Amino acid sequence: MSQQNGFHVAVVGATGAVGQQMIQTLVNENFPIKKLTLLSSARSAGKVVNVNGQEITVQEAKPESFEGVDIALFSAGGSVSKELAPEAVKRGAVVVDNTSAFRMDENTPLVVPEVNETDLHEHNGVIANPNCSTIQMVVALEPIRKKYGLKKVIVSTYQAVSGAGAAAVEELMDQTKAIINKEEFEANILPVGSDKKHYQIAFNAIPQIDKFQDNGFTFEEMKMINETKKIMHLPELQVAATCVRLPVAVGHSESVYFEVEQEGVTASEIKALLKDAPGVVLQDDPDNQVYPMPADCVGKNDVFVGRIRKDLDEELGFHMWVVSDNLLKGAAWNSVQIAERLVELGIVKSK
Amino acid sequence: MSQQNGFHVAVVGATGAVGQQMIQTLVNENFPIKKLTLLSSARSAGKVVNVNGQEITVQEAKPESFEGVDIALFSAGGSVSKELAPEAVKRGAVVVDNTSAFRMDENTPLVVPEVNETDLHEHNGVIANPNCSTIQMVVALEPIRKKYGLKKVIVSTYQAVSGAGAAAVEELMDQTKAIINKEEFEANILPVGSDKKHYQIAFNAIPQIDKFQDNGFTFEEMKMINETKKIMHLPELQVAATCVRLPVAVGHSESVYFEVEQEGVTASEIKALLKDAPGVVLQDDPDNQVYPMPADCVGKNDVFVGRIRKDLDEELGFHMWVVSDNLLKGAAWNSVQIAERLVELGIVKSK
Repeated sequence: MSQQNGFHVAVVGATGAVGQQMIQTLVNENFPIKKLTLLSSARSAGKVVNVNGQEITVQEAKPESFEGVDIALFSAGGSVSKELAPEAVKRGAVVVDNTSAFRMDENTPLVVPEVNETDLHEHNGVIANPNCSTIQMVVALEPIRKKYGLKKVIVSTYQAVSGAGAAAVEELMDQTKAIINKEEFEANILPVGSDKKHYQIAFNAIPQIDKFQDNGFTFEEMKMINETKKIMHLPELQVAATCVRLPVAVGHSESVYFEVEQEGVTASEIKALLKDAPGVVLQDDPDNQVYPMPADCVGKNDVFVGRIRKDLDEELGFHMWVVSDNLLKGAAWNSVQIAERLVELGIVKSK
Repeated sequence: MSQQNGFHVAVVGATGAVGQQMIQTLVNENFPIKKLTLLSSARSAGKVVNVNGQEITVQEAKPESFEGVDIALFSAGGSVSKELAPEAVKRGAVVVDNTSAFRMDENTPLVVPEVNETDLHEHNGVIANPNCSTIQMVVALEPIRKKYGLKKVIVSTYQAVSGAGAAAVEELMDQTKAIINKEEFEANILPVGSDKKHYQIAFNAIPQIDKFQDNGFTFEEMKMINETKKIMHLPELQVAATCVRLPVAVGHSESVYFEVEQEGVTASEIKALLKDAPGVVLQDDPDNQVYPMPADCVGKNDVFVGRIRKDLDEELGFHMWVVSDNLLKGAAWNSVQIAERLVELGIVKSK
């Protein structure tokens, strides 16, 4: 945990679902840490977190908390990032922000290392970590874009409740128990904690993630659309998304239709390409019923891809099924991976 | 139950999930029945079913069971239909078959009354009831096709386990209980009872419904593709499907992308059209978080449509979310509705 040549790392939102995964991922990856500062809201401050055998007390996040910090991983909501990320940057830290606060800011790189790590060089103190559902899709699409070009993407998602936080997972489990025991239950969180109405998620599917925009798409859908174009540097790419919440605790799935630019590409060629693609595990053997499923991806950093097949009508069209642990590649692992690349590329140096 | 001017109706597969719903729907719809014969496999024969206060003993289905029958509703698997539907027809019955046995037979009409009831006149003894996931989609698409034309459909489904029978619902519930109680469990039925491997469905999503075909699509996906073209009389329509099983007991949902032929159509026009469409209930008010969900559709005959919005790039493209009770409009209600239309159009007359 304490390496002399390491970095002073801060985790903001250390008691949340993603914050906890960030800490665990830093440990698992053996990230070179000189000092680890755990920060949270005043409400959670004082909690003691066991990090690889060492007890660390969580402190309230304040501007001065970032003195001496080299890398700050933020995952405590957009308003906290908007307020404190500039304070961290002012004190010399590089911020990796897992909220939507800076993602579409044109001076902030939005990075998935397998896709656009060279954008890290353009940072102005903050690097944004994309939305969970965007990350796993672009990891699968990038090798295809690189070799065959990419014209169009239409995605329908099957998203786990942990994307809405630990309380949403608890709500799913409580409602499930109540239904099985034939007891009354309430819906208080999903689909969106801050929206007006809440609906049953147990044994249901809710076609709303985040709030609705004026154009009829939800904010989650617009994140997938806009972030994909930005990360892949394809402003002209046609992207459409429908985002749906499922009674699954962890693991997002996506049914992705895409059109390439090059004619004559076969499904076998796409499979061969993804078999060796960074961050991708190909699970595609219909004869043996091999395809990715959320229950199998939990705790793994990879993006799992299967069900690759050519559209029966559209010469340039293909379908695939993409699954990943939304708390890892979709959040904690992508953030820590960005921190790793910042170190390895010499963009962040220990103070 | 016993109407002098009514019909002698037989239900084949009377003890199954859909058979039970067929009986209930005949009662609810006050279908003019002179005599009701309940048939099943030898295994289930002898069971007594209470039909609107009257006890009826289930008999083993044999060729001679259909003597005097006017209308036979089949839902006991494709092999039973292949064997016994011709026997029923030979004895003067009109068969409404809810299996895939005759759906793609060119001499058998495949009917969703809201879409192509005039095809009923072309029957040769058997009328096929389409696949559940196809029915609800074409009910929503037909009014759009009629007014604006239809070029292309890409659908991703979110299907309930009851589509795989009552035992699959039991498996979902048993696995859910086991996971909540942290007990061991087995997977024995889903995704496909007769396939080699079985996977956990509780808190999971399985991208396989029915067996895989050589082209990488599942049979369920090919049913949606081929049946949609046949029912809508659009052999040139581009249709693609990805079918996914969810931990939901009853109620299929579908994320449908479609392209119309006419330029300049707005989402408001599509909504206005579907508001008054037969068999459709529009639930589309994003400002008030109104959209269809499987938990709300159970026990209702309608097809619920919401989340209608124009694609942001494709001038002819739209998205919508379609939900229906897969045991009712997807199976029992569509079959009984066909029987009602056969009577009302004078195609079947009581013997």
